[in-house]
Amino acid sequence: MQEGQRTDVNTLGEFGLIDHLTKEFPLQQPSTIKGIGDDAAVIENGDLCTVVSTDMLVEGIHFDLAYMPLKHLGYKSVVVNLSDIYAMNATPKQITVSIAISNRFSVESLGELYEGIRLACEMYQVDLVGGDTCSSPKGLTISITAIGQGEKNRLCYRSGAKVGDLICITGDLGAAYLGLQLLEREKQIWEKHPDIQPDLEDQKYVVGRQLKPEARRDMIETFQKSALIPTSMIDISDGLASEIFHICKQSGVGALIEESGIPINQEAQLLALKFKLDPVTCALNGGEDYELLFTINPNDVEKVKYLPDIYIAGEILQAKEGIKLNTKGGNLHDLKAQGWVHF
Amino acid sequence: MQEGQRTDVNTLGEFGLIDHLTKEFPLQQPSTIKGIGDDAAVIENGDLCTVVSTDMLVEGIHFDLAYMPLKHLGYKSVVVNLSDIYAMNATPKQITVSIAISNRFSVESLGELYEGIRLACEMYQVDLVGGDTCSSPKGLTISITAIGQGEKNRLCYRSGAKVGDLICITGDLGAAYLGLQLLEREKQIWEKHPDIQPDLEDQKYVVGRQLKPEARRDMIETFQKSALIPTSMIDISDGLASEIFHICKQSGVGALIEESGIPINQEAQLLALKFKLDPVTCALNGGEDYELLFTINPNDVEKVKYLPDIYIAGEILQAKEGIKLNTKGGNLHDLKAQGWVHF
Repeated sequence: MQEGQRTDVNTLGEFGLIDHLTKEFPLQQPSTIKGIGDDAAVIENGDLCTVVSTDMLVEGIHFDLAYMPLKHLGYKSVVVNLSDIYAMNATPKQITVSIAISNRFSVESLGELYEGIRLACEMYQVDLVGGDTCSSPKGLTISITAIGQGEKNRLCYRSGAKVGDLICITGDLGAAYLGLQLLEREKQIWEKHPDIQPDLEDQKYVVGRQLKPEARRDMIETFQKSALIPTSMIDISDGLASEIFHICKQSGVGALIEESGIPINQEAQLLALKFKLDPVTCALNGGEDYELLFTINPNDVEKVKYLPDIYIAGEILQAKEGIKLNTKGGNLHDLKAQGWVHF
Repeated sequence: MQEGQRTDVNTLGEFGLIDHLTKEFPLQQPSTIKGIGDDAAVIENGDLCTVVSTDMLVEGIHFDLAYMPLKHLGYKSVVVNLSDIYAMNATPKQITVSIAISNRFSVESLGELYEGIRLACEMYQVDLVGGDTCSSPKGLTISITAIGQGEKNRLCYRSGAKVGDLICITGDLGAAYLGLQLLEREKQIWEKHPDIQPDLEDQKYVVGRQLKPEARRDMIETFQKSALIPTSMIDISDGLASEIFHICKQSGVGALIEESGIPINQEAQLLALKFKLDPVTCALNGGEDYELLFTINPNDVEKVKYLPDIYIAGEILQAKEGIKLNTKGGNLHDLKAQGWVHF
């Protein structure tokens, strides 16, 4: 490092910055099976592994309390962490929650936040086992760590995709992003005309996807019942494009995504058109859907073909073939990972 | 909760607030041995338990970058978490580190922070296995979770102290607090007279205790070698008084602390007098020394009597006798837990 040099963090992006900061950290503990670079870390404990994931949410960056009720925020903060544990094909069991709060927050408002956290704990049967509470000069910051358990030989990493594997997506994509666009627009209208009450009734689905997402525990249970182990898996938090890039990079492969295979909810489709947005772009780059992207061995296709809410959306290619999108019009485009642009 | 009621968080204090927010969280997972309320949570994995602790550090609240170099901050952030794991009589193995940063921080300055984190990982042989990096509208927030391993029947909780047990303290207390006072004073002088360079050479010990504390891994190793299992243990992060209150509350006992038994470093003693502070008050309420406070069965007294750096400072009494300080002058005072006053 040159004396006095100043490189803006934006030049590296989130993932580049993490790579840069953590590249000199050797793993010393024999129990560390997987360190940085997946949805969660994996720690050996005999046949059962401990799976750990952590996320930080900052007011004004990740959430806006103008339209995000604190109860929903508490719920969502937990769910996004649990989603990372499920994406390892593991089951979350415990969480820790740390918050930094400015004096703007009352005991009652924090009670709302923790009510949402409690509901998520109840829904997903996880225990709140620790945390930290401190003050902050400004705003609210939430940091949650989820701890889960997985069978060593059933865990799914980002690195396991093989050429010829089928690419699968659960649920539908893009709705959470459109929900956010809608809430942002209503906020702007409300700021100019505080007397106009927003009517979000017609857009319940997209608003719900943004404010109260769920993690796909049901899928992990379905995999177990169907004796299916995906070859690789990741949760879709930053948009399909970004996630497929992670899988391809870590598996050393390429991919072909069929535009016709990307599941998009009808309400989201219509709203995208209303906003003059391309629904497929919303699905590729929107993020926050917390669905699962996974790959399966083609021999397992019969196991997923008739399962509800799983869509086959493409195939794993050789690395040299790149990452392509086959549009409905029959054109082949290079996919770009726009992903996460919080910096 | 009454509609529109607004209770300031200051009315509850840190521990009261945590109790209030988390009282409705039942534990559902059979693997959760210990949830909220100790230095760390304990999760069962056969004979070995997973021990988890988490801390959040906020710029302007927990640290001041005017005198805290980023490398030291990184080191200290890790150490304070490891200290919680050692305080369970367990060994830390992995950490996750999440940071929220404003655009004031360059890649190079974050490199300094991570260099300190790396040094702590190397020193204590823990692996950095995950984390999150995001932007913040203001300042730096660091959230670290430490994951350790302990033998189920050797873990030490806050709740195990019995009447008649001896109270032991490692190292010395108060120096970290006096180091902070000194740095604060030098900062004020420097702000008024930027041409005057602070000379901290004579106070290396207290400044080092504040800027680069160490966790007492050596004590946990000593306990193992001496076949000693403390009946209860806690790390001294908020000052001796606050910690003895935690042990007494959770063990349902009282305590007598001998003022003459509280170890205070000579440099710290002299500096306290210079600042017109009572050295014992600094030891009782200063905090950030990251020493261990533990209790032992009186039958084990021979095991600790000749161990270096362990001081017997009192005895566990019945709850009804309260928590008392026997001064050097022979007076008996009720001890007050001033503790942590960040709100």
